[in-house]
Amino acid sequence: MPKGSVSASVIRRLPRYHRFLRELADDGVVRISSGDLAARMGLTASQIRQDLNCFGGFGQQGYGYNVQSLYEEIGRILGLGTHRRAVLIGAGNLGRAIAQHMDFVSRGFELSAIFDLDPELIGRQIAGVAIQNITALYDYCKRMNPTVAILCIPKEAAIKLSRDLVSLGVRGFWNFSHYDLALDYEGIVVENVHLGDSLSILCYRLSEMEK
Amino acid sequence: MPKGSVSASVIRRLPRYHRFLRELADDGVVRISSGDLAARMGLTASQIRQDLNCFGGFGQQGYGYNVQSLYEEIGRILGLGTHRRAVLIGAGNLGRAIAQHMDFVSRGFELSAIFDLDPELIGRQIAGVAIQNITALYDYCKRMNPTVAILCIPKEAAIKLSRDLVSLGVRGFWNFSHYDLALDYEGIVVENVHLGDSLSILCYRLSEMEK
Repeated sequence: MPKGSVSASVIRRLPRYHRFLRELADDGVVRISSGDLAARMGLTASQIRQDLNCFGGFGQQGYGYNVQSLYEEIGRILGLGTHRRAVLIGAGNLGRAIAQHMDFVSRGFELSAIFDLDPELIGRQIAGVAIQNITALYDYCKRMNPTVAILCIPKEAAIKLSRDLVSLGVRGFWNFSHYDLALDYEGIVVENVHLGDSLSILCYRLSEMEK
Repeated sequence: MPKGSVSASVIRRLPRYHRFLRELADDGVVRISSGDLAARMGLTASQIRQDLNCFGGFGQQGYGYNVQSLYEEIGRILGLGTHRRAVLIGAGNLGRAIAQHMDFVSRGFELSAIFDLDPELIGRQIAGVAIQNITALYDYCKRMNPTVAILCIPKEAAIKLSRDLVSLGVRGFWNFSHYDLALDYEGIVVENVHLGDSLSILCYRLSEMEK
């Protein structure tokens, strides 16, 4: 039960807690102290306690955290038990990698359709999903009401398509394009993955280290 | 010229300034006020002035910013003019997408070699770079001294390889694996891209919106 407004940086850390707890559970660990969890994650025990207190806290004094139930609780907070329908647009190298590489179901989504405009790609299957002609997108959305669109297309195409997608009821975007669509629409959720920005940050940090 | 310690969140915004300024320059815009730049980027004018003041500030009262020179200055701060040698390890779907999709040169890197252990992949070319057998990695690093490794491999493989890579002088990691290697080594720079975490955050934010 999240309390009021939890800061964005705490939210950003939740998937990482979730990953570490999954691994601990897989290793057969039943309970863990905030100190041990902190040491594994490169955090401090007090930061972990503070983070988890935002959601009501789950530890018991002298016992620590029950690994499996904390894992499940964080999964519930993240909403991972839902399976929102997602369409992937753009089956180029990046789109294909995303479709094949990602475990959508464990992240709360179902990859239900893939679209592209390249005749060579249309009809092929990725991760068990056939690539459809982009011209079929409108009808598909009308019929299947996907909640999420994954944009693996260039900026210009993203600008053109997003208006239709929003008007067709798509509410969430996993955005790999360089178009910042959150600036142009309200009432939608956009999670940007700007790989180029990440690489630039690596460059910056290396330059700083070498100084 | 960065002043002392600039906060991580300011640094994180620099690549985005750089992208927007590149587009403005491409559109022929010569100068822009902090207010106009803020409106385009969904920020406030005072945030932009504050961010850029961390590096000495570049605007002139009543003139605004010269787009091309601010673009170049931010590129210099990011260190993008260097071309550090990078090796990509793991030429599966994700690794191939990264190799083909990314413009390494404009981000300060040169993709100099790709390694995998799959005999079907070895010898193939991606983005003009031949995939080599992973057994050649050690000799390659001895000879070519790459600064950066891009890890597109599973966690177990990343754990095994990173010790060698660090001892061979690799100082920066663009890490797509689920191994948090920054916890185990000092004196290195790790930029993590956890796509699954990003997707989980999208799930969380959709759940929150629907409440």
